[in-house]
Amino acid sequence: MSVLDPTYDVIVVGGGHAGSEAAGAAAQMGAKTLLITMNLEAIAKMSCNPAMGGVAKGQLVREIDALGGLSGIVSDESGVQFRMLNMSKGPAMWSPRCQSDRMLYAQKMREKLEDKDHLFFRQDNVVDLISENDNEIKGVVTQTGQKFFAKSVILTTGTFGNGLIHIGESNYGGGRSGERASIGISAALEKLGFEVGRLKTGTPPRVDGRTVDYSQLEEQFGDENPTAFSFLTENLPSLEEQMSCWIGYTNEEVHEVLKEGFDRSPMFNGRIKSIGPRYCPSIEDKINRFADKDRHQLFLEPEGWNTYEMYLNGFSTSLPEDVQYKALRTIPGFEDVIMIRPGYAIEYDYFPPHQIRRSLETKSVKGLFFAGQINGTTGYEEAACQGLMAGINAALHVQEKEPLVLQRSEAYIGVLIDDLINKGTEEPYRMFTSRAEHRILLRQDNADLRLTEIGNRIGLASDERMQRVEKKKEAINKLDDLIKDYTVYPEKMDPMLESKESSTMSQPMKAERILLRPEVSLRDMMDYDEDFAQQVKDISDNKEVLEQIEIQIKYAGYIEKEFEMVKEMEKQENMSIPEQVEYSSIKSLSTEGAQKLSKIRPETIGQASRISGVSASDLSVLMVYLKN
Amino acid sequence: MSVLDPTYDVIVVGGGHAGSEAAGAAAQMGAKTLLITMNLEAIAKMSCNPAMGGVAKGQLVREIDALGGLSGIVSDESGVQFRMLNMSKGPAMWSPRCQSDRMLYAQKMREKLEDKDHLFFRQDNVVDLISENDNEIKGVVTQTGQKFFAKSVILTTGTFGNGLIHIGESNYGGGRSGERASIGISAALEKLGFEVGRLKTGTPPRVDGRTVDYSQLEEQFGDENPTAFSFLTENLPSLEEQMSCWIGYTNEEVHEVLKEGFDRSPMFNGRIKSIGPRYCPSIEDKINRFADKDRHQLFLEPEGWNTYEMYLNGFSTSLPEDVQYKALRTIPGFEDVIMIRPGYAIEYDYFPPHQIRRSLETKSVKGLFFAGQINGTTGYEEAACQGLMAGINAALHVQEKEPLVLQRSEAYIGVLIDDLINKGTEEPYRMFTSRAEHRILLRQDNADLRLTEIGNRIGLASDERMQRVEKKKEAINKLDDLIKDYTVYPEKMDPMLESKESSTMSQPMKAERILLRPEVSLRDMMDYDEDFAQQVKDISDNKEVLEQIEIQIKYAGYIEKEFEMVKEMEKQENMSIPEQVEYSSIKSLSTEGAQKLSKIRPETIGQASRISGVSASDLSVLMVYLKN
Repeated sequence: MSVLDPTYDVIVVGGGHAGSEAAGAAAQMGAKTLLITMNLEAIAKMSCNPAMGGVAKGQLVREIDALGGLSGIVSDESGVQFRMLNMSKGPAMWSPRCQSDRMLYAQKMREKLEDKDHLFFRQDNVVDLISENDNEIKGVVTQTGQKFFAKSVILTTGTFGNGLIHIGESNYGGGRSGERASIGISAALEKLGFEVGRLKTGTPPRVDGRTVDYSQLEEQFGDENPTAFSFLTENLPSLEEQMSCWIGYTNEEVHEVLKEGFDRSPMFNGRIKSIGPRYCPSIEDKINRFADKDRHQLFLEPEGWNTYEMYLNGFSTSLPEDVQYKALRTIPGFEDVIMIRPGYAIEYDYFPPHQIRRSLETKSVKGLFFAGQINGTTGYEEAACQGLMAGINAALHVQEKEPLVLQRSEAYIGVLIDDLINKGTEEPYRMFTSRAEHRILLRQDNADLRLTEIGNRIGLASDERMQRVEKKKEAINKLDDLIKDYTVYPEKMDPMLESKESSTMSQPMKAERILLRPEVSLRDMMDYDEDFAQQVKDISDNKEVLEQIEIQIKYAGYIEKEFEMVKEMEKQENMSIPEQVEYSSIKSLSTEGAQKLSKIRPETIGQASRISGVSASDLSVLMVYLKN
Repeated sequence: MSVLDPTYDVIVVGGGHAGSEAAGAAAQMGAKTLLITMNLEAIAKMSCNPAMGGVAKGQLVREIDALGGLSGIVSDESGVQFRMLNMSKGPAMWSPRCQSDRMLYAQKMREKLEDKDHLFFRQDNVVDLISENDNEIKGVVTQTGQKFFAKSVILTTGTFGNGLIHIGESNYGGGRSGERASIGISAALEKLGFEVGRLKTGTPPRVDGRTVDYSQLEEQFGDENPTAFSFLTENLPSLEEQMSCWIGYTNEEVHEVLKEGFDRSPMFNGRIKSIGPRYCPSIEDKINRFADKDRHQLFLEPEGWNTYEMYLNGFSTSLPEDVQYKALRTIPGFEDVIMIRPGYAIEYDYFPPHQIRRSLETKSVKGLFFAGQINGTTGYEEAACQGLMAGINAALHVQEKEPLVLQRSEAYIGVLIDDLINKGTEEPYRMFTSRAEHRILLRQDNADLRLTEIGNRIGLASDERMQRVEKKKEAINKLDDLIKDYTVYPEKMDPMLESKESSTMSQPMKAERILLRPEVSLRDMMDYDEDFAQQVKDISDNKEVLEQIEIQIKYAGYIEKEFEMVKEMEKQENMSIPEQVEYSSIKSLSTEGAQKLSKIRPETIGQASRISGVSASDLSVLMVYLKN
């Protein structure tokens, strides 16, 4: 190694949502980090829809933020519309979402990354990996033959790994429309013994917003009191400043036009063999699978503050362009539309995630981490949170510390990684609230209470964040005391209760009793009892604090029960399994159970319990074996 | 043609500096215009140095602006430092230059283009051309087989046409570092009978500004009173707000390190066969050609307001990366530098410009226009002004109007195009003041007076611009009258003249007489004669107006003489030559003269006179022939 051979602690390959978080986290934790990307002007580019968050995904962004990641702040700074989804349901379902200015998102992320002292950039194309004995990573090789060395390497290749773009009957190599594919890394991984697979995703056409007839669409506004993603953000655009989205519908005529192209569709003529995201299907898929539906909803989303380019959510397609165009112009409101970029499908390499550990380090090559679509996920948020965890664990690996593993009961991030490595995935994996069995605990509102301390302990979340959380906790405790201790009287509460069609009070009682009623909010009680309101405000006037205590009191029963269940399960969950167990030699294990256990090599009993094919009796056998 | 086949008036292929101006101009003139670019997020990207203008180039930008183009305004809005070069020389040499925020430049240009009602965007890759009988353009074909039709097509392929990137011994297809090359257009043009050539250009490494020791470099500030490129701009950043550049030097040690890589240099080992820009040589070229120089100057330029990425002007190279790196670290101040992107060379296709007319329309295919590097030029400004003229003439072609041709005595733009089509070019053509024989007339300060009326007449320069110019002209005329009529007295002027070491006045005289003295400025006279100052200010207090009248009076002698010469030459200049002249049949023409005339087919005698190989006697013969 000459003096000029550049050596880093951590190398991150790829600058998308996973790569950005990975590089930011590792550098923030003090690792000398190199981010290598094929195009420095495409960092954190939103390849698909101009939006962050949404159901379960918004929770992921809040968790990233609570840990000290960047996606939340960047979303807040580049959002053009903010909405809290599912407000009519319980707080476990509340999910923040924003529409983003795509260009601004990328710009702000790059600025945040440039703020990191230990982070260095390089525009280049990685074509090979350097390892020792095929089981320990040493560095990467770029297309000009330049070598870079590091103890940890994180691969975040997104859709670029052997990317192949399809539109109708034509297809060509590319990592994203208008950009080159990345060739070489997959072959290097296969040579190291990794199993490779192919997945597919797609994107709808972008249209010229000047050519849409909005009178035929329904306007969708942002929230009047928008909620930020980041626990640090204090200002967001007002409702008047926010941009609108627009709702439209396909109809049977549109479907007929689309069907005319089915014989030239790469989805149906066998050209595309790999599987796409089930919950983000193409429009041709929707028509095919739901033949009885005579219309499908479409969302027309702005791409930024200063552009008329718009994204037609719900119309993802890889049909031939002439068909796309004709079908578009059949949609009510789109009769004269001009298409700026056609929709397309893209196939890319992924590495089935049974090959990685809970730390996102690969099982077979020490120091090599995978994050994002390379692990078979879909979505910016899913990618970003993996990037964050890979960045954290790559830095901890350099520091020779234990990896950070979040439990399923601690974070959606824990659920996501645990699902990936145990259940594997043969189709792009997307987060849902239903995947989280403890979702009542994993709310967007308490991500900071759950995770900031962890983020701060490892040197990622700033002390400022930590202090805010401590202040918040203190205020919540004081409010809890107040509400449990404060007595409310019928003469003040009854008029409010009557207005809510809630039964009146027969005698004075503690405020908590009234707050437990689903139809009564803390705000209602404050409105009708000035003294109570004053005492609350004296403790805190912060919207998030008030929301938090209200949720904690109203849902205390559910939350406590859930905590008990978690505690019970943790006993098993964390019983660890040595790496070298010879499952084939354990008598009484089912054949399938032994095979699956040998393949996945779970680190704990909890993890083993979630492997499909491992039965309850296999689990008992294993626990007995381990205790002996 | 189905109803969905999209038809436009003008199609512009490529979204760089030429393509942006072309699309903007055509659309502004009412042509329904489609801009097709491989990557909509790379519009007007500064591929090389983060700067606009400079000697002769600044004049081009001022002319673009005066005609109603976009580059001037965009430069003003994205500039981080502004300087007027050559202020110690005569006003013909004054040249505005700015350092730009690269990302902001691209963003602002896209916003300006989105403001054009008749302009539509499309992200796609053109792979073929559609023509009728090989002599009239009809449209283009994109990589998915989609066809777009138009009466005028403008090709601005930049370095993307069969682009091949070289770094040391490795090379790969690409249009710019990190981006794909464009394949197909060259073959289509060759099939149409066009002669194709190859040129080369290159770019230096970009470095991490945090790793530079500025104490070893010399700081270069912007101007205290910065001058805008656009005649519409009113505000620019103050000196305090502007960013600095930094001057450094190579030394013999650096040269030795670079020489170690010469045997692996694509420049010297025969891999790169094509010719690069003579006046923007690579560092290895400079060392090779100027072996006696023991140092070369380098400018370290910021790439934008919010980035530490910096551009090392003067260090363009395609040496192997390890050599680049080692040499960089040998430069004083760069001992610990980190390289973000390596320098590289790129070879690309161009079409020798004897194949185009003064309108930039190709001679053999009606409605097909070329602009920018495809014509063999180098530089953003050279590209942008050709784009503007091609856009104008493409729109005029659609309107079935005569093309707009600027004379050599009207604009640097006229000089550039006339040079290209008559002299051809075998190396990248760059503008210099020395190329303009009438440069005393073609000043940056009077570009609006020269060109805005033309721009306004064709529907490009706005009425607001025109009104400003009329107001300016009126004020200049009034000031001219005042200065020629106003009498100044020794008691007021002598103290000032003495301070300037200028001889004192013996008697009262007209202000003009004093102003003609080179050492006296209008401002000096105003400072010492309050009444005169008041009368001047009553007419105009505008900096540009005062500068203009001062130049007009001080240089009146030169300017008038130049105008007379132009008038004399114009008589010949514009004597037109019919397209079908059979030069081979004209007796007394020299063989070489006849051959060159047959090849170039000049449209006027003026043009014929500038063809190398056409002698003065050939010209006389031709004029006699035409008169008969």
